[in-house]
Amino acid sequence: MTRKIILDLDTGIDDALAIAYALGSPELDLIGITATYGNVLVEQSVRNSLAVLEILGRTDVPVFIGVSHSRTADSFTPARISALVHGGNGIGEVEIPDARRVAERRSAVDFIIESVHRYGEDLIYIPTGASTNIVAAFEKDPTIMDVMGPIVMMGGALTVEGNVNRWTEANISQDPEAADLLFRSGIEVIMVGLDVTHQTLLTKAGTSTWRDSGTEAGRFYADMTDYYIDFETRAVDIAGCALHDPLAVAVAVDPSLVTLLPINMRVDLEGPTRGRTIGDLAGLANPVKTVGAAVEVDAERFLEEFMTRVGSVLT
Amino acid sequence: MTRKIILDLDTGIDDALAIAYALGSPELDLIGITATYGNVLVEQSVRNSLAVLEILGRTDVPVFIGVSHSRTADSFTPARISALVHGGNGIGEVEIPDARRVAERRSAVDFIIESVHRYGEDLIYIPTGASTNIVAAFEKDPTIMDVMGPIVMMGGALTVEGNVNRWTEANISQDPEAADLLFRSGIEVIMVGLDVTHQTLLTKAGTSTWRDSGTEAGRFYADMTDYYIDFETRAVDIAGCALHDPLAVAVAVDPSLVTLLPINMRVDLEGPTRGRTIGDLAGLANPVKTVGAAVEVDAERFLEEFMTRVGSVLT
Repeated sequence: MTRKIILDLDTGIDDALAIAYALGSPELDLIGITATYGNVLVEQSVRNSLAVLEILGRTDVPVFIGVSHSRTADSFTPARISALVHGGNGIGEVEIPDARRVAERRSAVDFIIESVHRYGEDLIYIPTGASTNIVAAFEKDPTIMDVMGPIVMMGGALTVEGNVNRWTEANISQDPEAADLLFRSGIEVIMVGLDVTHQTLLTKAGTSTWRDSGTEAGRFYADMTDYYIDFETRAVDIAGCALHDPLAVAVAVDPSLVTLLPINMRVDLEGPTRGRTIGDLAGLANPVKTVGAAVEVDAERFLEEFMTRVGSVLT
Repeated sequence: MTRKIILDLDTGIDDALAIAYALGSPELDLIGITATYGNVLVEQSVRNSLAVLEILGRTDVPVFIGVSHSRTADSFTPARISALVHGGNGIGEVEIPDARRVAERRSAVDFIIESVHRYGEDLIYIPTGASTNIVAAFEKDPTIMDVMGPIVMMGGALTVEGNVNRWTEANISQDPEAADLLFRSGIEVIMVGLDVTHQTLLTKAGTSTWRDSGTEAGRFYADMTDYYIDFETRAVDIAGCALHDPLAVAVAVDPSLVTLLPINMRVDLEGPTRGRTIGDLAGLANPVKTVGAAVEVDAERFLEEFMTRVGSVLT
């Protein structure tokens, strides 16, 4: 059985890799991409998702414009570090044509609401940026909270340091209030955070196989991803680039890739640790745990799946 | 086979409960108690351990005086909250006679060193306060690090908030540098932190069985522990008192009571989160994990073991 999925992306290099992983997974049916902000502005996220889908020959996948900033701000400006990680254009400074089509007229929030009502628990929503769109959907139509399936999110850091500072992960930092509302919503959330994504490293040995295939998509993805690998190996001093967003898609296909800790979570909203994701002491006594936090990963098996599935799309 | 253990205690109500749990466990041979500071001054910890052992009729267990303060301070004063949790005398304001004997003349540090050389991996060291004594022992005789068995510590908070502030647990807060050195020492450490101890709650239904038995030890332990239960249920708003230190002893007997996450840890030493225990990002790539952090506990089974073992000593 194929599962319907929505990817909620701030596209972003690893977001583009997540698109390829989803399209290369026969278990998944990507019914739409909703755009959010984070690595880039929401407009750039829309543009990149459309352009990437065109290169991949998948102009049948609709793209929807999401909310442009958090509830606590009037606007959003990407952090300076984002341009260093993802390039100023979000895709490693690689130039690809704009898509010939444009985004849908329906909003991302309306698309999410309609899709949940249509598919119920058969739909997996996979956010890899801020949690703004899904919480806006909850607020516009709370009835979706009673019928929706699990959410597999890339974000947070429970047992390791953050990447914005020592206690905050980037996606959560964009809209801590929304992430806190999501954790406390009662919806089942599988949190794929830095705890596990930092263990999944792609090197240029991997990207070179895409380039060597000679396809346009392979060359683009290799050049884009090498920009990310260059930054990570230089600035973060790890042996490759962390496959944050693709791992969330992989877990949606096969949760056995990770070990999940059942826990009730919240986000620090006040004080110096604003944006920290942490277990809620008050929730310890509750036998019902709504979050499964990924704390271990079979990195080797994931990397094999990643190369197979992404390779099937790019080469 | 019985395992030799040393309890390193800042006695303390739950430390006194840990003594009873150890003495009620036929799998364990308590070869000595080393005193540290935390809930009380080290002098009061020595006094309380001696007095409690006398009430329990176990004057054969020697008590050793440990280091009185952390390496970053000239002295130690208990936090004001400690007197509220444990009483000004550390044992719930219950008056019990001083022991007729005194502490050993050998220091706690020398006793630890000699015991490790004598018993090697057959010895389990169980610290339930600051990590000061064990690190002082490492520094006085680094060769013990090559031969010692696992350490089962009560301390830290990985997936939940702290109890000193939102990110720091009390034992770690007493000497963050020592805890960081312990985590990075390469020694196998099983960390029994607030993640699990806050799930193990004792109520007055439990302590009343000790009092009803009519023994001196049963009355003392019931009165002492009720002081702790009164504070926790009033101030922390939980349904009983958390059995922090006894759970560490229980895990030394039977590690299957908890789920351990293999991880390499460190302690934040700088900045606003000083004292936070967290996974070391640099250690993520290392396949060798030296810490097993307890992240889940079979609380029901532990409480049964606790009532059986402590009851066998008190009633």
